[in-house]
Amino acid sequence: MPERRGSTIIENVQPHVDGGRYPVKRKAGEPVRITADIFKEGHDDLAAVVRWRQLTPEQGEPREEPMRFLGNDAWETELPIGANGLHAFSIEAWPDSFRTWVHELQRKIEVGREVSSELLEGAALLDAAAARAEGSGARADAERLRQGQKALLGGQSPAALSAAVDPGLLAAASRHPDRSVASRLERDLRIFAERDRAVFSSWYEFFPRSTSTDPKRHGTFRDAERMLPYVGELGFDVVYLPPIHPIGRTARKGKNNTLTAGRDDVGSPWAIGGPEGGHKAIHPQLGTLEDFRRFVSSAKDLGIEVALDIAFQCSPDHPYIREHPEWFQRRPDGTIKTAENPPKRYEDIVNFDWMGPAREALWAELRSVFFHWIAQGVRIFRVDNPHTKPLPFWEWVIGEVHARHPDVIFLAEAFTRPKMMKALAKSGFNQSYTYFTWRNFKHELEEYLTELTQGAPADYMIGNLWPNTPDILPEHLQQGGLPAFLLRAALAATLSSSWGIYSGFELAENRALPGKEEYADSEKYQIVNRDFDRPGNLKTWIAALNRARREHRALQSYRNLRFHRADNERVLFYSKATEDRSSLVLAAVSLDPYALQEAILQVPLDRLGIPEDETYQVHDVLSGDRALWQGQSALVQLTPEKPAALWSVLRFRRSEQGFDYYF
Amino acid sequence: MPERRGSTIIENVQPHVDGGRYPVKRKAGEPVRITADIFKEGHDDLAAVVRWRQLTPEQGEPREEPMRFLGNDAWETELPIGANGLHAFSIEAWPDSFRTWVHELQRKIEVGREVSSELLEGAALLDAAAARAEGSGARADAERLRQGQKALLGGQSPAALSAAVDPGLLAAASRHPDRSVASRLERDLRIFAERDRAVFSSWYEFFPRSTSTDPKRHGTFRDAERMLPYVGELGFDVVYLPPIHPIGRTARKGKNNTLTAGRDDVGSPWAIGGPEGGHKAIHPQLGTLEDFRRFVSSAKDLGIEVALDIAFQCSPDHPYIREHPEWFQRRPDGTIKTAENPPKRYEDIVNFDWMGPAREALWAELRSVFFHWIAQGVRIFRVDNPHTKPLPFWEWVIGEVHARHPDVIFLAEAFTRPKMMKALAKSGFNQSYTYFTWRNFKHELEEYLTELTQGAPADYMIGNLWPNTPDILPEHLQQGGLPAFLLRAALAATLSSSWGIYSGFELAENRALPGKEEYADSEKYQIVNRDFDRPGNLKTWIAALNRARREHRALQSYRNLRFHRADNERVLFYSKATEDRSSLVLAAVSLDPYALQEAILQVPLDRLGIPEDETYQVHDVLSGDRALWQGQSALVQLTPEKPAALWSVLRFRRSEQGFDYYF
Repeated sequence: MPERRGSTIIENVQPHVDGGRYPVKRKAGEPVRITADIFKEGHDDLAAVVRWRQLTPEQGEPREEPMRFLGNDAWETELPIGANGLHAFSIEAWPDSFRTWVHELQRKIEVGREVSSELLEGAALLDAAAARAEGSGARADAERLRQGQKALLGGQSPAALSAAVDPGLLAAASRHPDRSVASRLERDLRIFAERDRAVFSSWYEFFPRSTSTDPKRHGTFRDAERMLPYVGELGFDVVYLPPIHPIGRTARKGKNNTLTAGRDDVGSPWAIGGPEGGHKAIHPQLGTLEDFRRFVSSAKDLGIEVALDIAFQCSPDHPYIREHPEWFQRRPDGTIKTAENPPKRYEDIVNFDWMGPAREALWAELRSVFFHWIAQGVRIFRVDNPHTKPLPFWEWVIGEVHARHPDVIFLAEAFTRPKMMKALAKSGFNQSYTYFTWRNFKHELEEYLTELTQGAPADYMIGNLWPNTPDILPEHLQQGGLPAFLLRAALAATLSSSWGIYSGFELAENRALPGKEEYADSEKYQIVNRDFDRPGNLKTWIAALNRARREHRALQSYRNLRFHRADNERVLFYSKATEDRSSLVLAAVSLDPYALQEAILQVPLDRLGIPEDETYQVHDVLSGDRALWQGQSALVQLTPEKPAALWSVLRFRRSEQGFDYYF
Repeated sequence: MPERRGSTIIENVQPHVDGGRYPVKRKAGEPVRITADIFKEGHDDLAAVVRWRQLTPEQGEPREEPMRFLGNDAWETELPIGANGLHAFSIEAWPDSFRTWVHELQRKIEVGREVSSELLEGAALLDAAAARAEGSGARADAERLRQGQKALLGGQSPAALSAAVDPGLLAAASRHPDRSVASRLERDLRIFAERDRAVFSSWYEFFPRSTSTDPKRHGTFRDAERMLPYVGELGFDVVYLPPIHPIGRTARKGKNNTLTAGRDDVGSPWAIGGPEGGHKAIHPQLGTLEDFRRFVSSAKDLGIEVALDIAFQCSPDHPYIREHPEWFQRRPDGTIKTAENPPKRYEDIVNFDWMGPAREALWAELRSVFFHWIAQGVRIFRVDNPHTKPLPFWEWVIGEVHARHPDVIFLAEAFTRPKMMKALAKSGFNQSYTYFTWRNFKHELEEYLTELTQGAPADYMIGNLWPNTPDILPEHLQQGGLPAFLLRAALAATLSSSWGIYSGFELAENRALPGKEEYADSEKYQIVNRDFDRPGNLKTWIAALNRARREHRALQSYRNLRFHRADNERVLFYSKATEDRSSLVLAAVSLDPYALQEAILQVPLDRLGIPEDETYQVHDVLSGDRALWQGQSALVQLTPEKPAALWSVLRFRRSEQGFDYYF
């Protein structure tokens, strides 16, 4: 027999991820809408609250937010979650006996029923409520309830009836309900409230070793500091550095991933660890820890955060291998196992024995890597190949970091199967790389971005859109020249609230290894010298996109993307809007880098809140052009040189009645 | 840090109801398809099983069913659940290390790699597997594994490589995996396996007191026995009787629900309890317990089961009120509270204090009511107004009954709000009344029946379709005359696998109280004498429908309904098919009782498995007409007199090659 005394059912609670197994993610400061179906047998009036508290960092007492009844057994409320961090909530619901009694009494009075017995019932309910009010020290309420009780005990009279249905009395009684009969959720649900930059961020990736002014010299953090104003002018607010640690010598890869490195070959920064140290050390050729701290601080002065690459793997020269042989698998012949995905071998990389017998100490050490860099002022980590490490590790380590530092942002380089990509996000990663890199045409972009921003993943994942990475130079960029770079930048910067480029994108670099989606002379294995003022670049375009993102709040949200009709398969048309419609943006992007494209757009007047007969202004923030539009149809012309329009929508709301002298 | 040693993720398990909070319902004997997404980091081969056992009635050891990999991290299997009752299952999944090793080895051999170190690794895996085989007494496997181990330890040679990839060795190793690293579901999921009649049933409701041959005399169970062959000829297999208990005298309702009953008024059988007894007693005017048992037994001889009405409420004369005052609420003036839904009052009914302080004894007593009638041979209960009693009570009492008698079928008279209707089914009711009673037109029927049979409710609820009940004479039947009865019967009998009628439907009785959906001179308050041979009846039609249901297995399943295109808004077109396509039925029903309707139907050849160019036979089992059709289009003509066609589809599969002499 069920223990509980109440019979109220609470079900279909939204939002949740896998029934509460993982937290939902939302932006701190944006109210979180909670809905549920709540009902019980019979016709009682019900009351319900969401009870919530911050879990990490731990914060005081639980709070309660009353829920509103929407009809058809549905209830809702908004939680004003302001603080960055993990929160838990439950729902409690109970029959509101005095409210039920008042409503039934009113119906009886309407048909002229004799209700003296009912008044005694009401008095008994008020007696109990008054006792609860007294018990909790609510003296004013207690007094109000006792007065009501007294009025009801006086027998049926116009005064008693009017006292019985007094709204103030009902409010006081409802503030002191009998919650011993409340039901609550079987399990708490959780919400991770993100800081702004976890949702809205613009990333620029570069190799500090390539920043030297002298092409012969290995770049240092001091050199890299000179990149920061440049990155800031392009409008980016995160600089992401590939691993900055000592690079292994054993089996070091040469230029273009060749198996034998020459004497001067700098190696892949992902082959981490040498005699100088491992994941907590700095590659001596880049400088000192002091130099790095200065770099972080200079970035901060420009409003830019530094993201470090976390690649949990070792070169054969990593100190861990000597100091902690128990963290690695060995072959029966005693040699250490290097990474492989047969027939491919990665002789410069050794993987940890993640779930092995020494995992407890191993995991603790890897956690300390995060804390080490957090202590240097880093709050963003881009995690390399997270899908080759156990999901339970990520859930644990991200939970541990977020418990102390909820402002830390983890970006998963999860270029892997869809379910693993999603599982990594559920396990705690704030952002994820996506398949955007390979989505080029209208149907596939609409379908994929709709799934990401409107489907289940929108509750736990922010897709960070990258048109290129050091690993991937997509065919589209190889073929389409500068126009392809322009349109891919426009898509990445406006479809999601977070995007990023790898250095050289702004120069339209697109020299590939033949038949592959890889860069020729990849910077992964050598220093690359760039002339950032090279003609044919798209720096102005990128700066304009990032400026638009900063100036238009609609572009800073992730889940507000909606696609609309354009009568041309080569033109994508979409809108983003803030909930209060104070920021409205329309975007039309040509997907064709080769030819002019025209389309008739179907403007979503409903979403914009604009009547069919109103004339409104659109301002293309990329070209500066302004136009007056009216009604649902608008014509756009896009060229390879200017393949996107990004309109801020402005309504003329003033009339003569707003003019000072009018009255 | 997570306790478990494995890192395999199991998620998105189907089917489940609310994440396992309630059991899924399926028909015993039909394999239950289980699917899940299963994956882990890296590239290991995985293995997975569904581990399941019968919970109630309790049955021996758990069994395991291996899952098949479908690609894209999806897995599936079918559970051969044969026994009626509650079952639990979980999923366990683990890396299959030796299989992974074999696959990697094969890829290395293909590129001519030296693999002697790998062979030693394989030997170590086989050593561990052999030890596990020995531990579990699998001697043959152990021997096979030791042989393999020995072959691998011999160093790299063609013989060793061939031994390593031997499928028999792999199979033996996979039979003895290291399950200490297995993951399993956080919580067991449950399946209630129904007996056939819980899914496939045809109900006939009648009042035994109306079965006397002498209109002046109160009918008895002896009289009612004479109805059974009649009911059997109509093709029904459940007779459902309104409450058969003593009826209260206090505040008894008169004819047509008047407040004062005359001396001879028989009262509503739902006002249960009098000096002669309560829910376990039999109304003396109906006969004795012995007579009732004989009635049940006579029905059984005809293949008919008896369903009793369970209305957990009391007349003011019920013995419980005297014997257990603590089970009822009293007003402050000491009088007992009668039922009300202000301003309506039900003075002949007293409700239990369901969640009150004495609920433990009350619930136990009510449970004993079920067991009392089960002991008399009853296995089906139709529960009156379950939505006015607490859901936790139903979940508990149905669980208690099903634990001992999983063959008991509960039908919920849940004519209430949609979420409550669904919650009752989740809580254990096998069948539910539905809004079919008020769904008359094409769009609403397609939408509602699709939700019921294909949507979430299909996992826990069988909608039993009733065109009428003693409480409800829908407008459609009041207006449409005999044709409306014909078409509503055809819909109810073929859209769901369970349907029912209340006596008099077959006579097209449709005299209503003016402006209401209630019968005039309702049988709820008086005895009704019927001439079952009255002209203008639809007995032949109903018998034909029920015969079709018995003869065509496709009509005996619930979740196999699919709607198809008919180019006329007044014609509904749908199909039902068994999974193996051995039974295929098409139905076209006119929704217009007033005029002839024609439609071009779009036959679902794909579903039927019939090629576009094949000629097939359709046999209308309601008219006996046969026709040859070919291709997707077919024309149907339906009249008010014959508003439905129900085609059995037959293919000509034989050719000369099947003829004995051919070869």
